[in-house]
Amino acid sequence: MSEQSLSLRYGGDAPAGALPENAVLSLLYRHRSVRRYTGEPVDDETVTAIVAAAQSAATSSNHQAWSVVELRDAERVARIAELAGGQEFIRDAAVFLVFVADWARARGLAAAHGEAAEAIDYIESTLVGFVDAALAAQNAVVAAESLGLGTVYVGSVRNAPEAVAELLGLPDAAFPVVGVAIGHPDPHDPAGIKPRLPQRVVRHREHYREADPADIGDYETTVRGYYETQGASRGWIAAAITRVRDIAGLHGRHTIREALARRGLASR
Amino acid sequence: MSEQSLSLRYGGDAPAGALPENAVLSLLYRHRSVRRYTGEPVDDETVTAIVAAAQSAATSSNHQAWSVVELRDAERVARIAELAGGQEFIRDAAVFLVFVADWARARGLAAAHGEAAEAIDYIESTLVGFVDAALAAQNAVVAAESLGLGTVYVGSVRNAPEAVAELLGLPDAAFPVVGVAIGHPDPHDPAGIKPRLPQRVVRHREHYREADPADIGDYETTVRGYYETQGASRGWIAAAITRVRDIAGLHGRHTIREALARRGLASR
Repeated sequence: MSEQSLSLRYGGDAPAGALPENAVLSLLYRHRSVRRYTGEPVDDETVTAIVAAAQSAATSSNHQAWSVVELRDAERVARIAELAGGQEFIRDAAVFLVFVADWARARGLAAAHGEAAEAIDYIESTLVGFVDAALAAQNAVVAAESLGLGTVYVGSVRNAPEAVAELLGLPDAAFPVVGVAIGHPDPHDPAGIKPRLPQRVVRHREHYREADPADIGDYETTVRGYYETQGASRGWIAAAITRVRDIAGLHGRHTIREALARRGLASR
Repeated sequence: MSEQSLSLRYGGDAPAGALPENAVLSLLYRHRSVRRYTGEPVDDETVTAIVAAAQSAATSSNHQAWSVVELRDAERVARIAELAGGQEFIRDAAVFLVFVADWARARGLAAAHGEAAEAIDYIESTLVGFVDAALAAQNAVVAAESLGLGTVYVGSVRNAPEAVAELLGLPDAAFPVVGVAIGHPDPHDPAGIKPRLPQRVVRHREHYREADPADIGDYETTVRGYYETQGASRGWIAAAITRVRDIAGLHGRHTIREALARRGLASR
């Protein structure tokens, strides 16, 4: 089971050797983004378990500098789908969770004790909030998948972060990091396990090694083959270059530093 | 099993209701930071499985803007322990993984095609790299724990990020995010499951709600009780205020924006 999933994960270029196997590893290897749902609801207790898993993730010095806002109301979910670049599948999810970097609680405690909160203005605080939120979100995704649910991350909640913050009623020093759509996967959804870079490209032993162009070339072939099974013609190298070349690759997110500052995370 | 772990996770203030249960949820709920190891080695295949799990996590638009550097050499591990604020337990870990935000691969591809890489200069790219690295790291931690190993995050690789980057040989546009120490847990390690904030404080339904001071007060009592079992006298509210009040709470990380810029992540 693990072995087969690993072969799909690496598009046939899986690491050699007798790897340990267990049900958790198989679950993690099999992750895929699910954007088609049956419409069956996800009950409150299930989300409670998912959030308990999220809270069980590590958090920097136990500061718990994150929150999650759960959206179920159809109109509000439709609005966030619109703000996130018109991603219609979001409307079909049973629940939409927005993970938030959240220093508002600590700021409130400082204010209640007559103290300032200067350290929140530094980029280190922004980064800790984003990392805390990401660790929590990943545990939420693993928990949801363990229950047979499908998930997909929605980074485009950062396309219009101030409008999203307003919709969610976020206080100063709380900022949307990622959304996670959750629902029962449509059994006819063709989305598969997307191949990743060969492990030797991403894993460095003792010292960072620049990627071997031959490895990148092999991966380009593998990924193109995967996208073809999805009816798309798309290359990985071209996408990487488009992403970094100029600000067009940021889909409007080149202004996010100003948005962070206006929302109380100056990121200096 | 899940129920008992949840009760510890919330220090007795666990969410009510009949929650779904399974072995993965139990594993996630039981997470604890492990800083004492038996000294037994962790073999290469085990790290291969852990990294394959990390690569299976979602990544923004499949850009895979992260890398991991695996440290085993005793002298190098001792050096990173020193750079990370003299955390001696790091020396006792079997493996030390440094998760890295990595736009160097994409920049290299752009350069090879005669293209610029302007978008890397924006804070959105820094954040995507940090979030990608965090999602991967969390899957690595879950994978390691599923194999009976103990882990602890080490955020203080950011105390001296440029020295860490130099030690690891990181290229421009690659920056250390977090370390993860991994080893076989010492069965005599008393570290337990640290209680988190009540779920009602962190989970918001449709709209963000400011925390109820009574909930925070209850949590303060719970956390103090937990630290007492660990032989420490420590409050959560005081720690939060110390963290945000002024730059002393950042342990030197108030200069991290300059370090990011010097390492090719201008974060503008």
